[in-house]
Amino acid sequence: MGRWEPNARGRLEQAALDLYVERGFEQTTTAEIARRAGLTERTFFRHFADKREVLFGGHSALREFIVSAVASSPDSATPIDSVIGALETVGALFLVRREYSRQRQAVIDANDELRERELIKLASLASTIADVLRGRGVGDLPASLAAEAGIAVFKVAFERWISDAGDADLSRLIRESFEELKAVTAGG
Amino acid sequence: MGRWEPNARGRLEQAALDLYVERGFEQTTTAEIARRAGLTERTFFRHFADKREVLFGGHSALREFIVSAVASSPDSATPIDSVIGALETVGALFLVRREYSRQRQAVIDANDELRERELIKLASLASTIADVLRGRGVGDLPASLAAEAGIAVFKVAFERWISDAGDADLSRLIRESFEELKAVTAGG
Repeated sequence: MGRWEPNARGRLEQAALDLYVERGFEQTTTAEIARRAGLTERTFFRHFADKREVLFGGHSALREFIVSAVASSPDSATPIDSVIGALETVGALFLVRREYSRQRQAVIDANDELRERELIKLASLASTIADVLRGRGVGDLPASLAAEAGIAVFKVAFERWISDAGDADLSRLIRESFEELKAVTAGG
Repeated sequence: MGRWEPNARGRLEQAALDLYVERGFEQTTTAEIARRAGLTERTFFRHFADKREVLFGGHSALREFIVSAVASSPDSATPIDSVIGALETVGALFLVRREYSRQRQAVIDANDELRERELIKLASLASTIADVLRGRGVGDLPASLAAEAGIAVFKVAFERWISDAGDADLSRLIRESFEELKAVTAGG
C-alpha cells in the first residue's frame, strides 16, 4: 500500500482530462497522467482500471444515486415523475462541474470508442431504471418507456447545458426538456 | 471483377449469421463465411468491409428510408407524427425478417463491441432525424426530443417484437408503444 494522498482520485481525473484535451486521448499514457498529478502510476491503478475509466468512473456513483432516488420516490408519483425527479436532483450535483463536463464531452465526442462506451453506459442506465420501476409494480411497457424517455430528456438537456454560453442550470433544462417532450408527444 | 453471383449479398448475410450463431462472432472468419455461402472471400469484400459490417449493412438503407419518409411527410404532420409514421412504415419492411432479426440480435447482445456499435448507429440515426426535422422548420429542442422519443419507442417496440412468441406485427407494436409513451408522459 502506498501512502495516503489527499484527493488522489480528483487530481488524477483532472490531470487526465487536461492531457486528453492537450494531446488527445490516444496519445496519453497512464504514466503521464500520474506524473502530471504528482502521483505514482501505482496510485493511478489503485483508482482506475485504465485510462478510459478515468472518464467513466463517475457513472457508477451516478447510477446508484439515480436508482435510490427512483426507488425512494413517493408511492403517489407516476413512473415518469419518479424518473424526471431523480434526474433533476442529479442535475443539481453537476452544478459546479460544467467546465469539467464540457471538456470531458469534447474528449469523448472526438473518439468513436469513447462515444460507444458512453452510449452503452446510458443504455444500461435506462435498463436499470426500468428494472427499478418494475420493482415498484410498474408494468413492463410503461417502465421501459418512462426509463427510455427519461434518458432521452437527460441527453437532450445535457447537450444544451454544455453548449450553453450563459449560466444555465442543468436541473432547469431537464425540467424544460421534459415539458417539451410532453408537448411534442401530445401533438402526435 | 469477379463473375456476377445471384444474391451474393443475401447469401453472405445468411451464412455469416448462421456461423455467428453456431460458433460465436469472435470465432468466425471472413474466409469461413465466404465458403459457407459458396463464394470467394474476394466477393465477400466486394460487399462488406469486415465481418462486423455484415450485421450492420442494412442500417444505411434503413436510414435513407426513414430520412426520406420524414422529409416527405405532409406539412400538416406534427414532428412526432412524422417520426412515428416513418418508423411504422419501416416496421412493415421487417415483416418477413423476424427470425433473421432475432438471431442477429442474439449475436449482438452477446458481444459488447457489437452492442456498442448498434447503439452508436441508433444515436446517429436519432441525430439525423432531428436534422431532417430542423430542415422542415421544427425548432431545435422539439426536433431533438421528437427524434429521441421516436428512437426510444422503436427500441422498446423492437425488443417486444423479437421476444414475442406469437405473431406480432412490428408496425403495430411501434404504434402501441407510442400510445403508451403518450400516456406515460401525460401522467408526469
